[in-house]
Amino acid sequence: MNKLFVLTGPAGVGKSTISLKIAESLEKSVLIEGDDIYHLVKGGYIPPWLPNKQFPLFWDNCLSIISNSLQNGYDVVFNYILNKNDVKNIKDKFPDAEIKFIVLLVDEKTVMERDKLRPLDCQMGKRALVLLKKM
Amino acid sequence: MNKLFVLTGPAGVGKSTISLKIAESLEKSVLIEGDDIYHLVKGGYIPPWLPNKQFPLFWDNCLSIISNSLQNGYDVVFNYILNKNDVKNIKDKFPDAEIKFIVLLVDEKTVMERDKLRPLDCQMGKRALVLLKKM
Repeated sequence: MNKLFVLTGPAGVGKSTISLKIAESLEKSVLIEGDDIYHLVKGGYIPPWLPNKQFPLFWDNCLSIISNSLQNGYDVVFNYILNKNDVKNIKDKFPDAEIKFIVLLVDEKTVMERDKLRPLDCQMGKRALVLLKKM
Repeated sequence: MNKLFVLTGPAGVGKSTISLKIAESLEKSVLIEGDDIYHLVKGGYIPPWLPNKQFPLFWDNCLSIISNSLQNGYDVVFNYILNKNDVKNIKDKFPDAEIKFIVLLVDEKTVMERDKLRPLDCQMGKRALVLLKKM
């Protein structure tokens, strides 16, 4: 049985870095950056923090890629900012998979420092702190 | 009925640039860079020009994302270096879709000049010319 690693945590906590390290440590693996899947939409793109109807397609795509990868014999590493309901949906969708959920947390100062290291158009500012408190 | 644009042509011909322009010109659209989908594999990654078993997963993922996007009401722009069989598979998979196939071609000199503008680890060298001649 192939493994599914699901990483979550606030922006700036290091999800991408750690996901890549996990994926590279596996013999056959697929890395799904949730942000990249969300950004597949170009015409009519709506940022994820605004009320929007992009999420059904986002989840269809993430779950399809996870499913295809497991069926083709790959382990999967998936990361995104998830809520309780998202976690439940993933568990329900893959009842037979060996899923490891990993929640990353960090202090407020580090989150803000890391946010400043991003390209200007990717910085989240105080929204990064709001997300940290929600987790 | 939503539209599916399929762009192909040799490396360095401008598939990504033109795909983005088409996608941005559409009201609701998804852009699928075939290369990005191919690179989802991290552990055990094999370059596409070597004999490898990564293509079944690649096509499962591309076709799933196209299908999900059309079903969610998005137009789709997809690009990759395709052969005749790939084109047939796409047509067979979406018999009811309005598909526009676009083949981009350019002269050898331009292909090599554009290749040199890529980041070093993305340059293809003479393989870019081999691909151009195949088209």
